[in-house]
Amino acid sequence: MATEEIKELPKSWAMVGGDGPQSYTQNSSYQKGVVDASKEMVTEGIKDKLDFKSLGFDSSNCTFRIADFGCSVGPNTFLAVENIIKAVEHKHSLQRPLAFQVFFNDVPTNDFNTLSKTLHSSRKYFAAGLPGTFYGRLLPKSTLHFAYSSYCLQWLSKVPNEVVDSKSPAWNKGSIQCDGLKKEVTKAYSAQFQSDMNTFLNARAQEIVGGGLMVIIMAGLPDGIFMSQAGVGMYYDLLGSCLVDMAKLGVISEEKVDSFNLPLYYSSSKEIEEIIKVNGNFSIEIMDSLSHQIWQTSKKSNIEVSVSGGRAVFQGLVEEHFGSEVVEKTFEHFAKKLVDNFSIFDGAAHEHIDHFILLKRHFN
Amino acid sequence: MATEEIKELPKSWAMVGGDGPQSYTQNSSYQKGVVDASKEMVTEGIKDKLDFKSLGFDSSNCTFRIADFGCSVGPNTFLAVENIIKAVEHKHSLQRPLAFQVFFNDVPTNDFNTLSKTLHSSRKYFAAGLPGTFYGRLLPKSTLHFAYSSYCLQWLSKVPNEVVDSKSPAWNKGSIQCDGLKKEVTKAYSAQFQSDMNTFLNARAQEIVGGGLMVIIMAGLPDGIFMSQAGVGMYYDLLGSCLVDMAKLGVISEEKVDSFNLPLYYSSSKEIEEIIKVNGNFSIEIMDSLSHQIWQTSKKSNIEVSVSGGRAVFQGLVEEHFGSEVVEKTFEHFAKKLVDNFSIFDGAAHEHIDHFILLKRHFN
Repeated sequence: MATEEIKELPKSWAMVGGDGPQSYTQNSSYQKGVVDASKEMVTEGIKDKLDFKSLGFDSSNCTFRIADFGCSVGPNTFLAVENIIKAVEHKHSLQRPLAFQVFFNDVPTNDFNTLSKTLHSSRKYFAAGLPGTFYGRLLPKSTLHFAYSSYCLQWLSKVPNEVVDSKSPAWNKGSIQCDGLKKEVTKAYSAQFQSDMNTFLNARAQEIVGGGLMVIIMAGLPDGIFMSQAGVGMYYDLLGSCLVDMAKLGVISEEKVDSFNLPLYYSSSKEIEEIIKVNGNFSIEIMDSLSHQIWQTSKKSNIEVSVSGGRAVFQGLVEEHFGSEVVEKTFEHFAKKLVDNFSIFDGAAHEHIDHFILLKRHFN
Repeated sequence: MATEEIKELPKSWAMVGGDGPQSYTQNSSYQKGVVDASKEMVTEGIKDKLDFKSLGFDSSNCTFRIADFGCSVGPNTFLAVENIIKAVEHKHSLQRPLAFQVFFNDVPTNDFNTLSKTLHSSRKYFAAGLPGTFYGRLLPKSTLHFAYSSYCLQWLSKVPNEVVDSKSPAWNKGSIQCDGLKKEVTKAYSAQFQSDMNTFLNARAQEIVGGGLMVIIMAGLPDGIFMSQAGVGMYYDLLGSCLVDMAKLGVISEEKVDSFNLPLYYSSSKEIEEIIKVNGNFSIEIMDSLSHQIWQTSKKSNIEVSVSGGRAVFQGLVEEHFGSEVVEKTFEHFAKKLVDNFSIFDGAAHEHIDHFILLKRHFN
């Protein structure tokens, strides 16, 4: 039964809604780059790895169900879903027609109104919104054929308690992220990631039919590289330093800054592989990473994009922790600081990577 | 394929969203009364008419799917759905457990955000939002076991063209509703209702499995009674007279008033029966009407409830046709006029009725 597994995340986990200038809709070009870069890989993955015969379709059961876990609002999710359907239809072309049903999942505070209003009226699938955290069950047993999750699983279900506990050896004073410089902090973040991924895999294992596929795209790091060595880690450090500046100016308290950490963990492919193997519900069909051109391009292109993109994602977290009255000031300061320091990114020794993973559900 | 059948209604068809003082959430006590009054009938209907053996559940397929067509926002839809699940579980108690998946349908401009946020975390079912007009396909073929629609099907997909066409013999000048006083107007409204009901039944016939049930609750009239003879018709006439007053005050134009009609049709049980029989996809298992105590009580109880309830439902229509700047003034005037004229309702010769219909999908 669903009851026991349903839990919800803080509302700050949702991206900025609506379609205004600060919305995720208008500020997710990086995430769109991820969708574009993965398009061909999804198509090829479906072509090579999807086995219709094993999925049990027959004359009374010909609905192919797809879910996007952590879809936020459009348009990225629509592009991704249309690409999946095209690939499935192409592979399936010689048999009887399938109907497609797509579930758009995100936290209940996601802007489902914008999502509903922007669904294409010419779409070739039945659409449903699926409110709830993906760290829990969302669909009935064995009803899903294709799961997709793009740029979400680096988000933890919560900040590990230890890293904001001044009495813990894993207290992460002076940093707002798992920068990799303190072993205890990394251990706490890594354990949380392991637990969350396992919860996610267990929930999806219940929902996906034997032989069904799951594509996971998520931010990560090359093996052996720390966040503080990567451009994106420097970006988060810069946001952290803005909060320290705000504390120095007396806008927020130092204690508040010390107790603020991002619920983000950039994992290595080695870590992920280990978690999936131990979980035991899926086989790894493809484990790869996306081309890095996206970050390179967005880095060089436009500081403004970099600021507004960060705001669309992180505004909720800053607002929840520090109060809505400091949001404007903080992001203004962040914008200024980014302009002044943009050259540091050119000196970044490493880039983060975007994992591309294609899993197949075992038959029970 | 879904594509061809998807069409959307004007955004004004949605109830007032959110949970503020003018929201549908806070102003749907009459509709809640309908849910309460029908509760026992739904329970009994499921007990007497649901035949599990015919629904084709087996070990690999044990998800019972329910959809509420035209759910608006909570809490009424949650109460109705929980009642259905309880009754199905009760009837099913001796066999293996079922999982429940519930689809909450309304137009894409419905407030799905409020709906998502107010889903009970302790619910015993998987929930999904289903944005789109129910005058079109919304779910894959033969995937639904129980359809429910409460207080929605008296809403037409559009106002019949003729009644707002000054060149048509069915021009409804001087009235904003199908008051029953002009044969051509009634004919136009009735034809639109017939067409819409047929579209609705055809779409649901595709979605509901053979042996599956559908409960329809909708506002109607006793056989042979006109709207202008019923309390609710007088209520709409009063709203219409407010618009005429607004025109006289120069707030809105007379032409605008003449071209405004409510997309509402209160049918007789005879009419509905005929439509269902001609449609041919469903058998009528129960055709009854709800107890009238609800309207009687709400009438006597509170003028304020009467005003705010009407506003939660009709604000969108008034706003779309006349512009948002006149909404406040119009409903203020309506409130005053209701206070001054509330005694007329005591003189109403008739009350409208609420049809309760239980249909069963034929096997193909």
